[in-house]
Amino acid sequence: MIKTRITELLGIKYPIVQGGMRWAARAELAAAVANAGGIGFISAHTQADGNALRAEIARARSLTQGPIGVNLTLLAANTGIDYDGYVAAIVESGVAAVETAGSNPSKYIPAFRAAGIKIIHKCTTVRHALKAEGLGVDAVSIDGFECAGHPGEDDVPGLILIPTAAEKLSIPILACGGFADGRGLVAALALGAEGVNMGTRFLLTQESPLHPALKQHMLAATERDTVLVGRSYGDSSRVLRNGIVAEALAKEKEGGVTYKDLLPLIGAPRWMKAMAEGDLEGGAIPAGMVIGLIKDLPTCAELIARMVAEAKALVSQRLRCVME
Amino acid sequence: MIKTRITELLGIKYPIVQGGMRWAARAELAAAVANAGGIGFISAHTQADGNALRAEIARARSLTQGPIGVNLTLLAANTGIDYDGYVAAIVESGVAAVETAGSNPSKYIPAFRAAGIKIIHKCTTVRHALKAEGLGVDAVSIDGFECAGHPGEDDVPGLILIPTAAEKLSIPILACGGFADGRGLVAALALGAEGVNMGTRFLLTQESPLHPALKQHMLAATERDTVLVGRSYGDSSRVLRNGIVAEALAKEKEGGVTYKDLLPLIGAPRWMKAMAEGDLEGGAIPAGMVIGLIKDLPTCAELIARMVAEAKALVSQRLRCVME
Repeated sequence: MIKTRITELLGIKYPIVQGGMRWAARAELAAAVANAGGIGFISAHTQADGNALRAEIARARSLTQGPIGVNLTLLAANTGIDYDGYVAAIVESGVAAVETAGSNPSKYIPAFRAAGIKIIHKCTTVRHALKAEGLGVDAVSIDGFECAGHPGEDDVPGLILIPTAAEKLSIPILACGGFADGRGLVAALALGAEGVNMGTRFLLTQESPLHPALKQHMLAATERDTVLVGRSYGDSSRVLRNGIVAEALAKEKEGGVTYKDLLPLIGAPRWMKAMAEGDLEGGAIPAGMVIGLIKDLPTCAELIARMVAEAKALVSQRLRCVME
Repeated sequence: MIKTRITELLGIKYPIVQGGMRWAARAELAAAVANAGGIGFISAHTQADGNALRAEIARARSLTQGPIGVNLTLLAANTGIDYDGYVAAIVESGVAAVETAGSNPSKYIPAFRAAGIKIIHKCTTVRHALKAEGLGVDAVSIDGFECAGHPGEDDVPGLILIPTAAEKLSIPILACGGFADGRGLVAALALGAEGVNMGTRFLLTQESPLHPALKQHMLAATERDTVLVGRSYGDSSRVLRNGIVAEALAKEKEGGVTYKDLLPLIGAPRWMKAMAEGDLEGGAIPAGMVIGLIKDLPTCAELIARMVAEAKALVSQRLRCVME
């Protein structure tokens, strides 16, 4: 047990959250994290509609008694998505928490509140975190420059972003981007977060659906093997370096190409297929810089137990020097 | 007293190092840090030649009994610098430590070793740190993406860079870039560093020679008020945003401009003058992203005492949750 404001809020044993990664965050992974004392999130977007999400939540429930959450990423540009269906599924399933991300979640907050669902808003800047706090969310998950996927355009890493946010917000903060182990957990708590939200680390576990060939590829990657694509369109995404990404970056540099033109290369359909098929060159595969620190494929239970043991050892041994 | 491998190596009370910032790192600042239980570094480059450096070291010695070091930045491109004179001054003065930076320091290592001077090499990547370790330096100071001045071109922040380096190196590591307080000190120790090296934080102290108008300007700055200039020439520098920097960035973006063409805008003579005169628009003034966390102008003694007290409180109170 590591008690923080986040564990109290979510009713969990350890302040460790599995991020709601599109494509990867499904019932098996979320349930494994919940069974290990953290909280697992299912990605709504990965399910075709509200009914499919309802079934996925039920599937997770069949695998764990622990708390499950749902990530609901609101894409301003993307029409035709069954948001009302997703929200109905979330509310009716009575999950422990929802992680909103992307656009302003205010439209859905009353429904979540009424259902007793805790609301965590994911964002990449202090000003957006303050905005979310003002809307009445229960916590924020704040993503540093290191993170997989969309870090925003401000390029502020966690070392700066977390304490800055912690000074300005009253609600608890989850540190996101750059965390994979007990060292990171202790650092996050020291910097003012109430826990960590990890994506890439949980992507590289036994219960993750990522194709084994890509798991092995990512284990061999270093801290220099991710890159931002889409920067010139104000929609940066941190992905693994590969040939497709090099091609997209060359087009960006060359100019005269619209973001829409890049989507056949870097868009979600392509990288989701690559993740399923283990095609290292199949798309712009989201990965955090923390892949440089990840060297094995534990079960979620092994991972969380190891993180907690490492954190305890750091505080009781290494950090004792501070007290002398 | 906070005992780590760095405090043992350098004979200091706290694992807090004042970085050898060009222009700003002079006798008064270095001595104030040494008197407060850390180690202060004088910038060799700020002195005209070996004799001037010898006099500056003597001046620091007249202000403190504590350990003083010298930063020696080796610029491959810059000829006509009195490196042999600087090295002679360092060796003859018998300072506690030298911080080499820039090019390969191997030429001078035997002289420093023979004089019993500890050698810290400053670098921005794990591969350069490993190279320096192989050359026989005693420690490395590793600069993350957040840092003021030259962060390199890999864009790896401290959250990733420090643990990655700590896993691969045997010699002790100083974490540099993004540190300003007790939270950062505890995070650095948790991540595997043996102490912190701070530049921007010591620039904003009573003993720093920075013009008061610029001190006030930097206190008001946020984590979003620095930017990298020189990226397109492979010589990125993190500086305060201002009109001059915007002009240089516009020229970089436009293209067809050589790095040499940019130097009248962003080169050291101009920003050193701006720092002395307090001209907010006078040049490309180096500043770390950590300016967003710095809100006051303490003496070095107040700053170090506060950091140590904050670190102790974190470990004895906030981090106790990990042990329960």
